[in-house]
Amino acid sequence: MILPGRAHLGHILHYVGKPLVWLLAWDIAVTAFWYLVQPVWIEFPSLPITLLGSAVAVYLSFRNTTAYARWWEARTLWGAMVNASRTLARDALTLLADRQVAARVVHRQIAYVHALRMHLRRQTPWDELEGRLPADEVERLHGVLNVPNAIHSRTAATIADTGTDPILLATFARTLADISNAQGGMERIKNTPLPQQYAVYPAIFTHGFCLLLPLGLVETLGLYTPLGSTVAGFLFLALLQIGNDMQNPFENKEDDVPLTALTRGIEIDLRDGLGEAHGLQPVQPVDGILW
Amino acid sequence: MILPGRAHLGHILHYVGKPLVWLLAWDIAVTAFWYLVQPVWIEFPSLPITLLGSAVAVYLSFRNTTAYARWWEARTLWGAMVNASRTLARDALTLLADRQVAARVVHRQIAYVHALRMHLRRQTPWDELEGRLPADEVERLHGVLNVPNAIHSRTAATIADTGTDPILLATFARTLADISNAQGGMERIKNTPLPQQYAVYPAIFTHGFCLLLPLGLVETLGLYTPLGSTVAGFLFLALLQIGNDMQNPFENKEDDVPLTALTRGIEIDLRDGLGEAHGLQPVQPVDGILW
Amino acid sequence: MILPGRAHLGHILHYVGKPLVWLLAWDIAVTAFWYLVQPVWIEFPSLPITLLGSAVAVYLSFRNTTAYARWWEARTLWGAMVNASRTLARDALTLLADRQVAARVVHRQIAYVHALRMHLRRQTPWDELEGRLPADEVERLHGVLNVPNAIHSRTAATIADTGTDPILLATFARTLADISNAQGGMERIKNTPLPQQYAVYPAIFTHGFCLLLPLGLVETLGLYTPLGSTVAGFLFLALLQIGNDMQNPFENKEDDVPLTALTRGIEIDLRDGLGEAHGLQPVQPVDGILW
Amino acid sequence: MILPGRAHLGHILHYVGKPLVWLLAWDIAVTAFWYLVQPVWIEFPSLPITLLGSAVAVYLSFRNTTAYARWWEARTLWGAMVNASRTLARDALTLLADRQVAARVVHRQIAYVHALRMHLRRQTPWDELEGRLPADEVERLHGVLNVPNAIHSRTAATIADTGTDPILLATFARTLADISNAQGGMERIKNTPLPQQYAVYPAIFTHGFCLLLPLGLVETLGLYTPLGSTVAGFLFLALLQIGNDMQNPFENKEDDVPLTALTRGIEIDLRDGLGEAHGLQPVQPVDGILW
Amino acid sequence: MILPGRAHLGHILHYVGKPLVWLLAWDIAVTAFWYLVQPVWIEFPSLPITLLGSAVAVYLSFRNTTAYARWWEARTLWGAMVNASRTLARDALTLLADRQVAARVVHRQIAYVHALRMHLRRQTPWDELEGRLPADEVERLHGVLNVPNAIHSRTAATIADTGTDPILLATFARTLADISNAQGGMERIKNTPLPQQYAVYPAIFTHGFCLLLPLGLVETLGLYTPLGSTVAGFLFLALLQIGNDMQNPFENKEDDVPLTALTRGIEIDLRDGLGEAHGLQPVQPVDGILW
Repeated sequence: MILPGRAHLGHILHYVGKPLVWLLAWDIAVTAFWYLVQPVWIEFPSLPITLLGSAVAVYLSFRNTTAYARWWEARTLWGAMVNASRTLARDALTLLADRQVAARVVHRQIAYVHALRMHLRRQTPWDELEGRLPADEVERLHGVLNVPNAIHSRTAATIADTGTDPILLATFARTLADISNAQGGMERIKNTPLPQQYAVYPAIFTHGFCLLLPLGLVETLGLYTPLGSTVAGFLFLALLQIGNDMQNPFENKEDDVPLTALTRGIEIDLRDGLGEAHGLQPVQPVDGILW
Repeated sequence: MILPGRAHLGHILHYVGKPLVWLLAWDIAVTAFWYLVQPVWIEFPSLPITLLGSAVAVYLSFRNTTAYARWWEARTLWGAMVNASRTLARDALTLLADRQVAARVVHRQIAYVHALRMHLRRQTPWDELEGRLPADEVERLHGVLNVPNAIHSRTAATIADTGTDPILLATFARTLADISNAQGGMERIKNTPLPQQYAVYPAIFTHGFCLLLPLGLVETLGLYTPLGSTVAGFLFLALLQIGNDMQNPFENKEDDVPLTALTRGIEIDLRDGLGEAHGLQPVQPVDGILW
Repeated sequence: MILPGRAHLGHILHYVGKPLVWLLAWDIAVTAFWYLVQPVWIEFPSLPITLLGSAVAVYLSFRNTTAYARWWEARTLWGAMVNASRTLARDALTLLADRQVAARVVHRQIAYVHALRMHLRRQTPWDELEGRLPADEVERLHGVLNVPNAIHSRTAATIADTGTDPILLATFARTLADISNAQGGMERIKNTPLPQQYAVYPAIFTHGFCLLLPLGLVETLGLYTPLGSTVAGFLFLALLQIGNDMQNPFENKEDDVPLTALTRGIEIDLRDGLGEAHGLQPVQPVDGILW
Repeated sequence: MILPGRAHLGHILHYVGKPLVWLLAWDIAVTAFWYLVQPVWIEFPSLPITLLGSAVAVYLSFRNTTAYARWWEARTLWGAMVNASRTLARDALTLLADRQVAARVVHRQIAYVHALRMHLRRQTPWDELEGRLPADEVERLHGVLNVPNAIHSRTAATIADTGTDPILLATFARTLADISNAQGGMERIKNTPLPQQYAVYPAIFTHGFCLLLPLGLVETLGLYTPLGSTVAGFLFLALLQIGNDMQNPFENKEDDVPLTALTRGIEIDLRDGLGEAHGLQPVQPVDGILW
Repeated sequence: MILPGRAHLGHILHYVGKPLVWLLAWDIAVTAFWYLVQPVWIEFPSLPITLLGSAVAVYLSFRNTTAYARWWEARTLWGAMVNASRTLARDALTLLADRQVAARVVHRQIAYVHALRMHLRRQTPWDELEGRLPADEVERLHGVLNVPNAIHSRTAATIADTGTDPILLATFARTLADISNAQGGMERIKNTPLPQQYAVYPAIFTHGFCLLLPLGLVETLGLYTPLGSTVAGFLFLALLQIGNDMQNPFENKEDDVPLTALTRGIEIDLRDGLGEAHGLQPVQPVDGILW
């Protein structure tokens, strides 16, 4: 996640810089060509430009809204994971009779959220799990497709084996289901990209529109064409790029939902709850980016 | 579901190719006609084109949003089914005393999601159920309208017959209700198409708009009319087509929610939970499409 | 609910035919008048037409979205009713000790959904209730304002009187509350029309806009005015009409949520669950309309 | 709530009549002034008018959507109150052993919804409470800030004091929480007006826009300026006014959510459930308005 | 939160005054320059202005909607906190056997909401906690990262230690989870700013657009350029500013969700529920602003 204050001009130029340079070159080429062949030039009239512009805006506006909704849902699901982890820890410490088991449940939940982060980012979780789970359990997890889900099931078994009152077991079952639901939602976003029509078409149309732009503007704008047309193209390209950035929130990119920071935060809260002297600090941003 | 990377140019041309060729032919015909009868031609002025364009955009934009919302709700309901299946399996294995019954409940849930997939795609489920359910139960299901619902009810009876503590039965009842709700939501989307006014009118108006387009543009664009008017028509036809693709997510088409992959995924997770050596692999995409 | 395939051209003409004919007549009259008095004619310039057009589009677009949201919420609430009915029946058959009482609960729920359908469509429910409820209960219902709610309360009493374990009673209480909530939501939509400002103003403004349209177009379009102006008017009138159709989903009109089919479907599912040989078939569409 | 059929022309003129007359006067003044000083007049060109028009439309469209969302959420929360009241009454009558206490709970809930209505409309509730609650309780309520909340808490205490099974107490606790949530949501809407930027700016900009309109139109429209500019202004002023009407739904105005009718409806349903001969009739609209 | 009636002209000028003055100066400079160099001036034609205007409107409209959604979600979460606090207090007083403990739970919840307010506004909570919590607990809280969460966990332990019936403990667990969820949602909004692309780009583009505006208008507007262009710029700058104000609702600014008033309100309600003579009054607005 990019933090406020970082998006200075250098970053923005880096952001859409490459297509912008190409666009500027094309705009200059069209203008130069126009001066050379002016007499036989037939203007590309303004009407379709406006029409195309509004149709492209419909695509981009829809895509933008949808991409942001995916990103924000991903963030909200991690928020739900934070809440459910706290609730699970609080219930374990207050409702389970055996404090040892309660602490084990809390530690398992810490291992779980780290495993889930690695799972969503398609990284191997073994380094994170070492020391957090018993070695033989880590061993068994190697054959399993969905590692966090397997950890979670075993946490449930740990709680059930305490012989706690069924009522309180039912309360735990609800919290465990909340955790399952949050994980399932994250996997849904991860595994279901924005339908390709929404991903590919806006890109094609926006780029095509930027190519047509100087053709339509050169007759009225003359030498100012590269300026006017590059500025307008910048707006549309930036709108396109924002959608690209936001649509996949678990890709280990700078626009990701900050999973590392969130899982560290859960770990600190849960260990604070256990009263452990963990010495952990919240994740700090690197170059203005929180991972 | 079309996977990223597949929507190359060939696919896109295939996508709106046929109407586009017809559109191009019409645009050329209008332009040719205009050159022949130019003197008596009366321009179709630009004002109504813009007006029509924005009215058509209102239709298409609404339809697009709604069709995507249906698709995404369908996907979300399957996500809820994944979550509830995992929760049901976890609760069965941890809360039911008899491990045999628990395994039977898990296997029944696997049969259920396959039956639901066939039910939504209007296919006969018997091949999928063979070997997954007892032969006599499959027999009895032949007379029933809603096969997955009948399987689900029997799973509920299996759990209730264990004589488990009422509290835990109530926990199961909630998970079973979640499954019912997800199935009901899917049937709602399947059985209630987008109101026909939203399906038919945008199609009529978009095609009509594409027919009028060259008439309005030919006077200003001249020989460039086929280009300008086909490009603009392409945008509008593509917007129309996207809505068509997304609105019905359970039709066994390439834009479907990937039911086969989802049900296979549930089966793998649940069998992993039982510790079975199932040898199943996630469904792989065929030609860039995940079914 | 109009089924796909029915909205052929004849239906569409029927749909906005009458206002369209009036519109065409007005457009022709304006054009004819313009030819007679051309010299003293002062054009109605294009600027306000575009301005009015976009303001009218804001109204229609908002109304369209809202009307569809009402319709879809009505459909979703009936979906919730389907789910809750199945859950109630399943819980009755698996959790109640006395199979006789369970069957009575299921039959009562069938009577309830039929009564609710009649209640929403402001029809008398007595024919539907005859034979489904004991005669003396039907008798007592005559004095009651909200018949389905009274049936529902008595179902609750029937379940409570079984002396079932409080835990399971609580599970039933939740399902019964879901049913109450769905009914309450339907009554909300039924009793609260779209605020009149949204119902009346768009109609006034759209019709007014259609009247002004030929005045603004006649100078540029000349003899083509009736064509151009009627086509544009058609789009706006159709947008207006769609909103009218969708906004009230329980009016016994062809655009209704298909209550008859839904309640029949619930009845079949519930009787299948009881193992009854009911011989009922799903409701078939009549002339392409599912009621 | 204004009922369908009432919004006739007279009502609409009353609705935006005053600003419309002022607008017309201004439009005429501008036109007259233009005829007098025509030679030195410099047109206010059309470009900024269109630009301003679309910017104002962004404001109005956003505000409209938000205001309606507030109104509809208010209505939905009252729908939830209807549902929860019925559920509370049904549970009281079926799950509490002592019918006397059950009836007292139902009567208290009736008093509660009336008190809540008065609370939201900032009216004193004492007339409504007299006879519905014991005199000494009404006495004690005089010192309390939030009267309905205090009544509600005491209802909870009444139920808890019955010594009912904890499971059923938990079921009641959930319904009581639903009621709390609905009340809290209503208070949120009541106490949190639309942010002032959204309330004040659109008003300023719309009025400013209406003032500039004739200046921009007079050159092209000439003597028709007052007509064209007043019609366009009417649309924008009406859009502004709709937002004003809808944004605060508990103000004892004609656009209110019909609290009086809703609370009466709850009272009838609950008394019907008790089998009382109450003789109450649903609230009838007065002059087409349901309060 | 700014209260109705305060946003008078002075406040508005203060609001966007500074950029507006700069804008006006720039508009005047462009116009003056145009008069001096008129012969060699080449107009910046209107087409890109309109195109840019609509692209900028897409950004601003999206950002506006999103910023308001964040603000309203923040308000709704605090509404949920009000509801859950009341429910917790009501349940404590009616379901816990020991009135002393119940009162302690209520007092702890008051301390909790004050601590949460300070936590969200990044202020030290110690003054608020003094006297509300035992001194030794406040001591221990100094080492903890998330103070309100730690208070909340201890409240849960207080309730669990009463040895209450597990059923009722489960009811408390649900309310405590609701409180956790509300807090988690607030932290999500606090810690996750609007993605920087949405925060920075609209600002750049809006300011850039305002700079280009007089260049495009000066040829047609002449001496009226500063007026027309400043008015149009005002609308766009105001739209930009509204988004800025609303997007971060916990910053101790005048547009904040009124946390001080909300927490005071919770304290009054809860103390009224205990029957304490607290003498607290609702927070009054200062200069039309409710903090």
